[in-house]
Amino acid sequence: MNPELETIAAAAAAAAQPFADTNPRDRARALVAVADALEANADGLVAVAMAETGLAEARLRGELRRTAVQLRLFAETVADGGYLDVRIDAADPEFALGPRADVRRYLVPLGPVVNFAASNFPFAFSVAGGDTASALAAGCPVILKGNPGHPELTRRTEAVVVEALAAAGMPDGVFQVVMGQEEGVAILRDPRVKAGSFTGSIPAGQFLAGIAAAREVPIPFFGELGSLNPVFVTEGALAERSGELVSGFVTSVSGSAGQLCTKPGYVFLPEGHGLDQGIADAAASVAPHRLLNPRITEGYAARREAILATSGVRAIAEGRVEFDGEGQGWVTPTVVAVSLDDLLAARETLLEESFGPLAILVETDPGTDLAALVPILLEGNLTATVHAAAGEATPELRALVRVLTEHAGRVLFGGWPTGVAVTPAMQHGGPWPATTNDSSTSVGTAAITRFLRPVAYQGAPEELLPAPLQTANPWGVPQAVSPAGESTAWGANL
Amino acid sequence: MNPELETIAAAAAAAAQPFADTNPRDRARALVAVADALEANADGLVAVAMAETGLAEARLRGELRRTAVQLRLFAETVADGGYLDVRIDAADPEFALGPRADVRRYLVPLGPVVNFAASNFPFAFSVAGGDTASALAAGCPVILKGNPGHPELTRRTEAVVVEALAAAGMPDGVFQVVMGQEEGVAILRDPRVKAGSFTGSIPAGQFLAGIAAAREVPIPFFGELGSLNPVFVTEGALAERSGELVSGFVTSVSGSAGQLCTKPGYVFLPEGHGLDQGIADAAASVAPHRLLNPRITEGYAARREAILATSGVRAIAEGRVEFDGEGQGWVTPTVVAVSLDDLLAARETLLEESFGPLAILVETDPGTDLAALVPILLEGNLTATVHAAAGEATPELRALVRVLTEHAGRVLFGGWPTGVAVTPAMQHGGPWPATTNDSSTSVGTAAITRFLRPVAYQGAPEELLPAPLQTANPWGVPQAVSPAGESTAWGANL
Repeated sequence: MNPELETIAAAAAAAAQPFADTNPRDRARALVAVADALEANADGLVAVAMAETGLAEARLRGELRRTAVQLRLFAETVADGGYLDVRIDAADPEFALGPRADVRRYLVPLGPVVNFAASNFPFAFSVAGGDTASALAAGCPVILKGNPGHPELTRRTEAVVVEALAAAGMPDGVFQVVMGQEEGVAILRDPRVKAGSFTGSIPAGQFLAGIAAAREVPIPFFGELGSLNPVFVTEGALAERSGELVSGFVTSVSGSAGQLCTKPGYVFLPEGHGLDQGIADAAASVAPHRLLNPRITEGYAARREAILATSGVRAIAEGRVEFDGEGQGWVTPTVVAVSLDDLLAARETLLEESFGPLAILVETDPGTDLAALVPILLEGNLTATVHAAAGEATPELRALVRVLTEHAGRVLFGGWPTGVAVTPAMQHGGPWPATTNDSSTSVGTAAITRFLRPVAYQGAPEELLPAPLQTANPWGVPQAVSPAGESTAWGANL
Repeated sequence: MNPELETIAAAAAAAAQPFADTNPRDRARALVAVADALEANADGLVAVAMAETGLAEARLRGELRRTAVQLRLFAETVADGGYLDVRIDAADPEFALGPRADVRRYLVPLGPVVNFAASNFPFAFSVAGGDTASALAAGCPVILKGNPGHPELTRRTEAVVVEALAAAGMPDGVFQVVMGQEEGVAILRDPRVKAGSFTGSIPAGQFLAGIAAAREVPIPFFGELGSLNPVFVTEGALAERSGELVSGFVTSVSGSAGQLCTKPGYVFLPEGHGLDQGIADAAASVAPHRLLNPRITEGYAARREAILATSGVRAIAEGRVEFDGEGQGWVTPTVVAVSLDDLLAARETLLEESFGPLAILVETDPGTDLAALVPILLEGNLTATVHAAAGEATPELRALVRVLTEHAGRVLFGGWPTGVAVTPAMQHGGPWPATTNDSSTSVGTAAITRFLRPVAYQGAPEELLPAPLQTANPWGVPQAVSPAGESTAWGANL
């Protein structure tokens, strides 16, 4: 390992214990300090982000604010202490299997985490984004592998974060940045690193997950990869609100030039839906938007060409891909339609994520058994969306909802999947290949559990227990206590 | 896949939805019915287990009772509903990042689970043991890969479990058994199977974990592998209760002929401890015990020979390995001592689990920095134990406890690690190679979360929500509600 990486890994490892030992209220205040610092530096950071990513100012200001709110939410989570999942079994001489000792269990930080930043959210899934916030909240030092799409923003954000954490009294080495793919892989392989997180493509995620699993000591790896985000529209919904459906759909497909992991890529709807003109008009009103970088433009243009050239595909809004003098691609939305039969005939070409403002309408015959279709067509997804009429709850619709929950982490009703709220109940994950690890989420407070492991203390004297497990409970965390005497009644009153 | 396995995989897949949809109280009652049936059939099952495993009647009766209590505890867990981790974000027009929809999240069963049974606990870690109980509690059909060490017991227990589940109204296919290593691997590779669990050796666990990770669609795999279970005894503890230490130690090492994953394999204690005669006497009073099978005897005998032949090793109780007319090995405890320097010199030979009644005392100089020693000597363990004097809480002891929590899932004070209580706070897991996945436990109620994944519903009408997420809450499960209006205060009052 090169000396710079060695220094970084050593510093993260040295920070692990003092950082884990910080009082949660102090760690919470440090997260708030980072949020404050990001907002105080918004003008400069957003200007750099605009230049490096081509994303619009309003979107980037909103994303920075979201990143700050996310840090504040994790601060609340840490201060509350419920995430520690403290369980206390009282010693019990009458235990059903003979006397039991006092046992106390809680969750402790894993240690240093390497977080691979995404290209498409230069704030919310990058330097100080959700993976960083949740790992710091858990008490784990973070080594961020910067995304090559916004290197200057990465260094500027790093400076803001490091200064805020230091001013808040957090140990040196709790947040560091490395650049370069080889460097990121070297850190992922380092025995001092205890977990990895990633947001990006399926091949890159598979590659990194494989490295994490093949280490001499394997570590957990949380990758958020690809998603088709199917949408299902019923006859009833079309009859009730076709205009609203068209505008919501085109807005969701074209926002941030479709470079969102929750972009609705496929809309299943009855043939004869009559939306062509409305979609064409709405798409025509979308101004050209720069894609993140030339590599992404190249991939998008090839996908778009292949789809448009596929037998049975009808262009509703053909859209454009044009290059500027700096080699950056500018795009307008492409929306095509295809019958279910033609989709099935060309599934190798058509059923793959298009990273950019492109969506495919899949037109189905009346009476098509959509619930039976889902397992044939779909792998795992981050989201699946249902548009039905008010009060519609047919057996067919229930069956569809049921099967969608088996193929997605979040099922929406009457909305659009882009714009993921940062809240306690949010789920941003899903069955493979949406994520490498479907036990978790990368957005929302449950994301913190990815970076924790359980430890139990048995028969420990109060003075040797960590603070959250002490009967005196100096941090005031929630403690779930199982009293003595209850085991003999287990199962008796059901 | 052979037709029999195909039928089994298909039946498990067909059972997944109806089983997941069972009312939790009905599923809880079914678990209690299995517990009742096991206890009602105890005489016959224990007799078969004695013949097949060589374990003693009292131990096996206690283990069967433990297995039944475990099922009753999971029944309580299921009926309570807290394991569903229901989170409800109220719709919030004033949300800090713009209006947010109603989002509701809970945990759903993964689907069919394959569970590889252990040899050393023919009830508690086999057919109806902890992995089966927790997967059934979660609502996942189980395919049990039977252990070849107790095939007749496996079939008899299967019959008891299947009949009890059917009589309790559970769907066909929720519990099935396959025998044979190739058959188990084929089931683990089957796309209809969604998770695996395992208790056994490091090589077998690594092999199976690799298969789970290399599937076209990878699945979570929860393996409990090897553990050295170090014990640390202070001068103070020796001065206070050396007799009690000797008897507790020899009992823990020799119980079930040392064939327990939590057997204390290494005892670090000050040189000049003066325990040799006491240990020799206690070991001499232990009657010969049959090992589980000739393959285990062969491995144990070779390990024991290698240890006794290592330079610097002093036999305190040499013990014996003798074969009976049927080729089964009978053993008495072997306890040896070695200096820390000699241990370090021969670490390749000496620092490896011995599956059987063998333990190594490691004699240290006064003032040895034990906390510094732990990372050099130990990988991950299921347990680590500290014996100190009453009230002892020196900085050295605190440092040792701290480092032990980084190398073990359960840290004990003043007891012995064998005899794992089945309780809400129990942790039976630990850093690699103790387990393949240190986010979980295989004993205690937290084990249920291994077989669940989160799903969120956004903006769903009440009539399309699953029961635990409905505002009406027909199952009466705990629901954590985040009200509207709170987001603007996040981070403000810390």
